[in-house]
Amino acid sequence: MTKIWQKPGLAKLHPLVEEFTVGDDLANDLTLFPYDIRASKAHATMLQHIGILTPSELDILLLGLDELQQLHQQGEIRICHEDEDGHTVIENYLIEKYGDAGKKIHTGRSRNDQSLVALRLFLKENAGNTRQKLLELARIFLEKARQYEFAPLPGYSHMQQAMLSTVGHWYCSFAESLLDDAELLQSIEMHINKNPLGSAAGFGVSIPLDRQSTTDELGFAAIQQNSLYCQASRGKFESLYMEGLVQVMLSLGRFAQDMLFFTAQETAYFAVDSALVTGSSIMPQKRNLDGLEILRGHVSSILSSQHFIQDTAKNLLSGYNREFQLLKKPLIESTSIVQQSIDIAALYLEGSEPQPDVIQKHISTGIFAADIANDLVSEQKMPFREAYKKALEQVEQEVDLLTNIKKKVSLGAPGNLGIKEYEKRLQRLQG
Amino acid sequence: MTKIWQKPGLAKLHPLVEEFTVGDDLANDLTLFPYDIRASKAHATMLQHIGILTPSELDILLLGLDELQQLHQQGEIRICHEDEDGHTVIENYLIEKYGDAGKKIHTGRSRNDQSLVALRLFLKENAGNTRQKLLELARIFLEKARQYEFAPLPGYSHMQQAMLSTVGHWYCSFAESLLDDAELLQSIEMHINKNPLGSAAGFGVSIPLDRQSTTDELGFAAIQQNSLYCQASRGKFESLYMEGLVQVMLSLGRFAQDMLFFTAQETAYFAVDSALVTGSSIMPQKRNLDGLEILRGHVSSILSSQHFIQDTAKNLLSGYNREFQLLKKPLIESTSIVQQSIDIAALYLEGSEPQPDVIQKHISTGIFAADIANDLVSEQKMPFREAYKKALEQVEQEVDLLTNIKKKVSLGAPGNLGIKEYEKRLQRLQG
Amino acid sequence: MTKIWQKPGLAKLHPLVEEFTVGDDLANDLTLFPYDIRASKAHATMLQHIGILTPSELDILLLGLDELQQLHQQGEIRICHEDEDGHTVIENYLIEKYGDAGKKIHTGRSRNDQSLVALRLFLKENAGNTRQKLLELARIFLEKARQYEFAPLPGYSHMQQAMLSTVGHWYCSFAESLLDDAELLQSIEMHINKNPLGSAAGFGVSIPLDRQSTTDELGFAAIQQNSLYCQASRGKFESLYMEGLVQVMLSLGRFAQDMLFFTAQETAYFAVDSALVTGSSIMPQKRNLDGLEILRGHVSSILSSQHFIQDTAKNLLSGYNREFQLLKKPLIESTSIVQQSIDIAALYLEGSEPQPDVIQKHISTGIFAADIANDLVSEQKMPFREAYKKALEQVEQEVDLLTNIKKKVSLGAPGNLGIKEYEKRLQRLQG
Amino acid sequence: MTKIWQKPGLAKLHPLVEEFTVGDDLANDLTLFPYDIRASKAHATMLQHIGILTPSELDILLLGLDELQQLHQQGEIRICHEDEDGHTVIENYLIEKYGDAGKKIHTGRSRNDQSLVALRLFLKENAGNTRQKLLELARIFLEKARQYEFAPLPGYSHMQQAMLSTVGHWYCSFAESLLDDAELLQSIEMHINKNPLGSAAGFGVSIPLDRQSTTDELGFAAIQQNSLYCQASRGKFESLYMEGLVQVMLSLGRFAQDMLFFTAQETAYFAVDSALVTGSSIMPQKRNLDGLEILRGHVSSILSSQHFIQDTAKNLLSGYNREFQLLKKPLIESTSIVQQSIDIAALYLEGSEPQPDVIQKHISTGIFAADIANDLVSEQKMPFREAYKKALEQVEQEVDLLTNIKKKVSLGAPGNLGIKEYEKRLQRLQG
Repeated sequence: MTKIWQKPGLAKLHPLVEEFTVGDDLANDLTLFPYDIRASKAHATMLQHIGILTPSELDILLLGLDELQQLHQQGEIRICHEDEDGHTVIENYLIEKYGDAGKKIHTGRSRNDQSLVALRLFLKENAGNTRQKLLELARIFLEKARQYEFAPLPGYSHMQQAMLSTVGHWYCSFAESLLDDAELLQSIEMHINKNPLGSAAGFGVSIPLDRQSTTDELGFAAIQQNSLYCQASRGKFESLYMEGLVQVMLSLGRFAQDMLFFTAQETAYFAVDSALVTGSSIMPQKRNLDGLEILRGHVSSILSSQHFIQDTAKNLLSGYNREFQLLKKPLIESTSIVQQSIDIAALYLEGSEPQPDVIQKHISTGIFAADIANDLVSEQKMPFREAYKKALEQVEQEVDLLTNIKKKVSLGAPGNLGIKEYEKRLQRLQG
Repeated sequence: MTKIWQKPGLAKLHPLVEEFTVGDDLANDLTLFPYDIRASKAHATMLQHIGILTPSELDILLLGLDELQQLHQQGEIRICHEDEDGHTVIENYLIEKYGDAGKKIHTGRSRNDQSLVALRLFLKENAGNTRQKLLELARIFLEKARQYEFAPLPGYSHMQQAMLSTVGHWYCSFAESLLDDAELLQSIEMHINKNPLGSAAGFGVSIPLDRQSTTDELGFAAIQQNSLYCQASRGKFESLYMEGLVQVMLSLGRFAQDMLFFTAQETAYFAVDSALVTGSSIMPQKRNLDGLEILRGHVSSILSSQHFIQDTAKNLLSGYNREFQLLKKPLIESTSIVQQSIDIAALYLEGSEPQPDVIQKHISTGIFAADIANDLVSEQKMPFREAYKKALEQVEQEVDLLTNIKKKVSLGAPGNLGIKEYEKRLQRLQG
Repeated sequence: MTKIWQKPGLAKLHPLVEEFTVGDDLANDLTLFPYDIRASKAHATMLQHIGILTPSELDILLLGLDELQQLHQQGEIRICHEDEDGHTVIENYLIEKYGDAGKKIHTGRSRNDQSLVALRLFLKENAGNTRQKLLELARIFLEKARQYEFAPLPGYSHMQQAMLSTVGHWYCSFAESLLDDAELLQSIEMHINKNPLGSAAGFGVSIPLDRQSTTDELGFAAIQQNSLYCQASRGKFESLYMEGLVQVMLSLGRFAQDMLFFTAQETAYFAVDSALVTGSSIMPQKRNLDGLEILRGHVSSILSSQHFIQDTAKNLLSGYNREFQLLKKPLIESTSIVQQSIDIAALYLEGSEPQPDVIQKHISTGIFAADIANDLVSEQKMPFREAYKKALEQVEQEVDLLTNIKKKVSLGAPGNLGIKEYEKRLQRLQG
Repeated sequence: MTKIWQKPGLAKLHPLVEEFTVGDDLANDLTLFPYDIRASKAHATMLQHIGILTPSELDILLLGLDELQQLHQQGEIRICHEDEDGHTVIENYLIEKYGDAGKKIHTGRSRNDQSLVALRLFLKENAGNTRQKLLELARIFLEKARQYEFAPLPGYSHMQQAMLSTVGHWYCSFAESLLDDAELLQSIEMHINKNPLGSAAGFGVSIPLDRQSTTDELGFAAIQQNSLYCQASRGKFESLYMEGLVQVMLSLGRFAQDMLFFTAQETAYFAVDSALVTGSSIMPQKRNLDGLEILRGHVSSILSSQHFIQDTAKNLLSGYNREFQLLKKPLIESTSIVQQSIDIAALYLEGSEPQPDVIQKHISTGIFAADIANDLVSEQKMPFREAYKKALEQVEQEVDLLTNIKKKVSLGAPGNLGIKEYEKRLQRLQG
């Protein structure tokens, strides 16, 4: 196939430059292909509205685009280096098969806005998909929290036992974190839900495109208005989307780290399903939680992808710059990593059970010192700072764990988890 | 002064550890001091509601806190290394001056939630302050856009002249960017607008704190419920706040880079007020736009502060960890840098004027090729891909710039900036 | 195939965990396969030395490893998810084909040191390959510098014309940068040239391995001694290797940015071969230097890969952690990107020519102000700070460019490039 | 004071721009002041050599510079915003006090190379200082390793007990890491040991500066030749210096994380001096190792400072750009953080003792499985992969720890630490 812009008589692009600039981007274009098709249909439909295409030309183009969509579903679209990108594959197919009608599809658009709108649709859809997965994971945490609502677990600060807590309290800390993440993804989706199609190469065209029409057709909430800003928002919208993923990974990474600590031989607070552990090539006894270690490592994958996007986009001259192309890969890869990570977290959550006996054995007596001080405040009206000094003398006294837990009644404390509140939020977010 | 936790008979903290752990954090605590006071008042008031303090004890504490606030305003609060932090200064002052009442202020709270709530209040307030500054800057861009609505300016892609654009179009691309940024800051503020006070050291306390009361008193939209999540949201909320600042800097960095390009000797498209340029120690002729270069550099300051926050907080064991303290400095410094950067951008925007004659001279003939192709489509019904091939033959024809611009009528194109839409958004956001 | 550690009667690894932990790592293992084979041969040879293998068993294993090597060269090695990794493919092949001898290959090693040594060999070899490419690029810069030694070019500071310089001076700035980079890569290669094989899973084995033997056989300069440090150096050696690549990209990124500025319509200081420019799908006139834009973008690819490596490795508990696996991909991808980038820079360097007439036309008169001041110092013994003030009055005087250039005679200034020095360094480094 | 470049009749720099561009850089200039003085002396001496200064003018300038140095030592140098920087303070002082001689100090140099050489001297000196501290820390690790050479400690992989190791083995892993770091710092120091003075604003001057003379005088190993490259190496040399610090922090961060794990209630493998732990404001029993947590957090401080430097410097147009100024702060701060961190690590190392009884109690039986397999290989000539399968059946057998340890005799394994090798390296590096 030939490149769209190739002029007769001019030198062909040097193969090293072709390889370097196209690189592994063709795989990304394959992922974005269905979104490109959707946007191309909306664009063609609009061109007919404003009289650039005849109704029968539109029919032909929609037919051709449907064929391409089917070919893609059947895994039969190949984009090769000479095609340069997925956009060229679409245009070349339409021209080869449908002649003059095909030659009109690119009227009033540039590959710049074509690529931008396809990516935008991908991000929008995946913000939603990720959110659904998050809500399901939050639901499991809440279910587990109900099950282990009053099961004791040491609470830590500075990696030292601090105060008595519960497994349910710990589970709820993730549920709330994930609900916040889901809510954030929703507001991020709203922020980027704007249509760049019609901005062409960043400076509009002398054809009266009806941008509201493609906006409605593609289900965007608004037109992204200034055509130069459409390009300038590259890196910005993507960084924000990545921030949504970063937040998810910060939640999950904490879960992974806690689980890895809670399943060391020295703690053994949780027992893990043997289908979730791997062995060693040299140490026969090993039972490793590799899935959680990889998850922990992938926190950095997502962080560094966000940084890459920000760094690449920063301080560029206004208008399209070719390095924008490089933003696609980290977005697509990160989306997949995060969605997988949520599934993995769910697996380890469901496949692990707290071991109350082991836990109880490891609770240090000092853990009750703050409670003892507070009891002196409540019961003997002792000023806190004095009670604090007294408390250490009494730490050897016997403490009933359940009584201790149930005394912590402020909302969100171990004795009053407020699980109902989370369930309501969950329903609202699922709605 | 003594540390709150120092026990008689125990070794004093090694001075190197003291210096290393406290470091330059005292300056941050001084910045956060008024927020700490505000939260301390709310906490004390709540303690009286639930019967821990008598009304007269509350009066005493409120009085003491007012005194501290005044001392801070007068620049008379000093926090020294031995105090460890601002929280200790508050408690020690109240105890020394008011005895037993002072010893009660720390009932039911930890420095963990105390520090968290002060920082949260700071972030909330500064998200708002930054937003106001953004809106003012957007307003100036719109004003300038009206003034230069049809003043020609080359539009670029790949750092090459692409299509004809206008100064107004370019200005509007920033206005829209900033309006988006302001809207985002608003939704970020909403996301973090949750009260962590009452979570104590992450595990609640055995005293029935009324968390709704401090939430209302401090103007938070909601309780941040799970007490462990209050600690676990550290790094998360801060990263999100930083994302708001990153977005602002990506907008401003583009402005800086464009201006630096547009004021090189080779372009000289804009003339800049001599109060905004600096000279050289060796080259007498130099007129440098240092303010914009520093602004461009500070894009990276903000990016790397966000990364620091994310990296520091990732994969830590649940519960407070001392490195959370290190998050304060980049937040406070970044807030100041971004607010200054907005002011600087406004200065250079107002202090620079486009030079129509110079600009016009530099517009290359090729810049009209896409328009010529589109005219062939519109006027001769030629399929775009054929028109594209024809267009190059006609690039030498004379083009009237204004006519060319006014033909680009789709919303957001140079001929139809839609400034009114922005003005409406601006009003809505200011309201 | 089965996993090495799979025990009969135990649950199979959950397929989602398998997919998540193995991920796209199989492609990396395919790249590292020949290095793994090399190290396996050295390991087997050593095992025979110390009497674990009989001479005939060694022969069999070496034969089998040769077969594997050949299969790899023929592109016939496939590593599938169930194999888990390339190490398993090797062991399984040897066991299936050669029975008991195969079962002995893994004696005294773990996949931990096996993977580590393969990667180390890859890094060593590619530090060398990259250095060779750098030296070749430096050579071209020097050749070009000789050609354009006295061709005038404005020198910039703050993106403003500062003082007169030359194309040769500019070229030499890259030559010296690249020579430094090559030298650095050499010292980095020396730093990481240490053999981790024999460290097993990080804690040695109760078999008296002869580590010096494999060290000599594999051409390492030294044994990496402490077996736990072998694992702990993960992330460290890799970050250092990446620093070598970062330095290269900082050199090349500057070249890309300069060239993009020097080929804008407004400057047009360089003409570029049409085989190195691409066109636009909508603007028929466009000639874009996409290769340099992608290069510029890939500076961030390399930076963020280094950060990923550092962030992933930091603050992990001593000993192997599964996320170390994730370090392979960025190392392999970055190596390829950097080597390609050097080729691309060479292409654009060779395919572009300075345009003296255009350049001369754009030299501003102010550019000579510092020289005038210095002349007043030299000729009239005027104190510099006074001469500085006088110079501006004289900037309109006619200046002969060549005379001006040749007056700057300190080493490394435009009039005295010292190309010979570079040529000597180049030879030394090539030697 | 007035700015060097201020011209009469021209607008004064806008105060907001002045504040924004100077920012907190004055504190950095104060740190660099003595290095600036040293370089100024070398520059003046050279100016006299080449006849720009008379001997008596040189005497005056050296006297003035000595006075400035003394004022700095006495803490009496103030650099205020209007001075712009430390360089201006020096020049203004010399002019005010010594008139015409003072007006000659800036002949043939720019603040660009003046600032560059001062920073270079700072980096050189501190690479050395940091290295000395590293060697001392390595020495303590080796001392401790001798003391606890055969004290058992579980070895971990995947955060699970893997094989038996020793405290000495663990200590040595840090000693080797630090020796490598020290060696690297040495080669980094060599790489950056090049004199940029004489490059002026990046383009030389028309005065025949004797660059070898200042190079010798300042103790640099070589001239950094190309004057444009002197500027272009900004960000590069700094990133490399930071890489040296990153490597140190990766070593120390691992120590901190291990210690935090080994001092949790659940392990309690080490007892820590009470002068190294802090308490809690709410939990009377807490003994926190804050110093190590802050150290762990500062790993990210150093990483993100490196990233900031790389990001700021990347893809800038050749020549000085004002954002280079922003590189000073992270370099100075990072240097101080790393040197403090080494001291802190030494404190916790010396102030903590392994608890053999506790450790022994926690060693799991499975930890010997790999050894059992290896024994079957050695003693029964069983192929390893079969021995591996057998080993699990025998894990309940009694194992003598010391015997087990002493069997691991390959160099660097727990039974053969090779401490002497390290001591030799240490001596060589100290030499």
